[in-house]
Amino acid sequence: MKPYVLGIDIGGTNTVFGLVDTRGKVIASSSIKTAKHARFADYLDELHTEATRLIESVDAVDKVHGIGIGAPNANYYTGTIEDGVNLPWPSPIPLAQAFAEKFGIPTAVTNDANAAALGEMTYGAARGLKDFIMITLGTGVGSGIVINGQVVYGHDGFAGELGHVIVKRNNGRLCGCGRTGCLETYCSATGVARTAREFLEARTEPSLLRNLPIESITSKDVYDAAMNGDQLAKDIFTYTGTILGEAMADMVVFSSPEAFILFGGLAKSGDLLMKPLREALEKNVMSIFKGKAKVIMSELKEADAAILGASALGWEAKPMPAPAALVATVL
Amino acid sequence: MKPYVLGIDIGGTNTVFGLVDTRGKVIASSSIKTAKHARFADYLDELHTEATRLIESVDAVDKVHGIGIGAPNANYYTGTIEDGVNLPWPSPIPLAQAFAEKFGIPTAVTNDANAAALGEMTYGAARGLKDFIMITLGTGVGSGIVINGQVVYGHDGFAGELGHVIVKRNNGRLCGCGRTGCLETYCSATGVARTAREFLEARTEPSLLRNLPIESITSKDVYDAAMNGDQLAKDIFTYTGTILGEAMADMVVFSSPEAFILFGGLAKSGDLLMKPLREALEKNVMSIFKGKAKVIMSELKEADAAILGASALGWEAKPMPAPAALVATVL
Repeated sequence: MKPYVLGIDIGGTNTVFGLVDTRGKVIASSSIKTAKHARFADYLDELHTEATRLIESVDAVDKVHGIGIGAPNANYYTGTIEDGVNLPWPSPIPLAQAFAEKFGIPTAVTNDANAAALGEMTYGAARGLKDFIMITLGTGVGSGIVINGQVVYGHDGFAGELGHVIVKRNNGRLCGCGRTGCLETYCSATGVARTAREFLEARTEPSLLRNLPIESITSKDVYDAAMNGDQLAKDIFTYTGTILGEAMADMVVFSSPEAFILFGGLAKSGDLLMKPLREALEKNVMSIFKGKAKVIMSELKEADAAILGASALGWEAKPMPAPAALVATVL
Repeated sequence: MKPYVLGIDIGGTNTVFGLVDTRGKVIASSSIKTAKHARFADYLDELHTEATRLIESVDAVDKVHGIGIGAPNANYYTGTIEDGVNLPWPSPIPLAQAFAEKFGIPTAVTNDANAAALGEMTYGAARGLKDFIMITLGTGVGSGIVINGQVVYGHDGFAGELGHVIVKRNNGRLCGCGRTGCLETYCSATGVARTAREFLEARTEPSLLRNLPIESITSKDVYDAAMNGDQLAKDIFTYTGTILGEAMADMVVFSSPEAFILFGGLAKSGDLLMKPLREALEKNVMSIFKGKAKVIMSELKEADAAILGASALGWEAKPMPAPAALVATVL
């Protein structure tokens, strides 16, 4: 078996990729902007160029066993993205096939959050756990569910979209998925920014955030203001953590996980987010589950976790017969 | 191996039990009232007497391999009921141990809805399905979740309590579990009766239901009125089915089941319930799941399904060492 795999994580903003060895060490990694190219073929060209450069830089040409890809809504069974709501290209995108042809290397794909869960189970905070739920708090909210030590794919490969449980049935925020009230419209980085804009308009007290142009406020701005003692910014995190904790209480009655693993930029907000989250989870969870599910942070570096998870799939990747016509319509 | 198993389903109202052969045929069955006895030991005495009579009536003494029990909140791992919210006895109830000692037969237990799912997977509408969710609409709302062909027990044995997802975050109905807004306060038989009382007080138009004492109205009364063309009664089913369909749309993003199997008295309400349910599911489900999850009725007779499911566990039951002190405190 060749000694390396290439792990690729395709996010709404960045695509990060790295070469990983058999012991799970990231030998080298890099990234490109996902949304830079309007055509998927141009994106694939740039990624191929950059990844080839990376592979050459560590003398790994012809030493890559497989490619593993984590991407939004990517389907483990079909190798495609059928509905890439956070990506700029038309769906479906025949991801596994296109990468396998472009690189000449067997490729397997899964949901980005499933990949993160695999990485956490193999190398991180979920080592030894058989029942846990990975929640990724990034541009959106993703999830990877592990039950009996297996990632839950569902009958069609699309299970584990917990960013799209409905947390507000009435007057909920419009989501990229076309519905309203989804968890990710409140508890993602963009959700926090939306909450900031709502709070600034609905409330009147002074806030450091009022010094910023309201339309460009980010979750990082809210974090910085909160760390500087700004009460309105703190309230935004309390609101966010409470909604996430309430939603997690409903996830507990489904699969009774031993732990939730949180990952992503927002998860690094510390007690600002975690205190209201844990309080809401404990307050809202059914009594037989009280005090059981732990809420823990990812133990992997943010970029590495996704690369490692995706790369784990690379070891399983198998050559597939080419449905040439399908690829031709996209490239 | 002895040729029979005893399947026992303990519901909030009735306990049904039957002798089942290796081919899944219910040889004989009977039932007792669950809530008749304030002491668990008295209940166990009556059940032992009646079950023994049943076993003798078909000449099956010493031919029972094991006992399988389905009961609310029963834990597959520990054999106990830790929080029997719909039962009259103090928790925890060491169910498997108490039955094994009383009958002298190895006993295994699980959640009543998990048992129903096992029965449906082995003998009923879920034959051949590896990913489905069983929803039981009885005194409460129960669920048994099957993923990759396995019942989901979670890390502690209590997974699959979908009757207790929160469907109304504000002003929700008080649930037997101590929280408010649970699915089962709306979509169980008792939930339908509560809706009837709410609608009759909040609305003013004539209804056949106004001829009945408001506090004693049952879901059967509402069904009968709706079948007689009563608009208010029909609206109660529309309200119920809509809430259930919305909740099921959230379940789909978790495990993406191939089908929901509905079971229990309310599930027999036909289009009164199913039409709004299917409409709400389809309207609220995330687009990548649209048109996928089937909603189908149990194919087993209501009493038999629970007995068959519970009995399937009986084949797996193993003798256990007796923690005598624990049993002594209850008996």
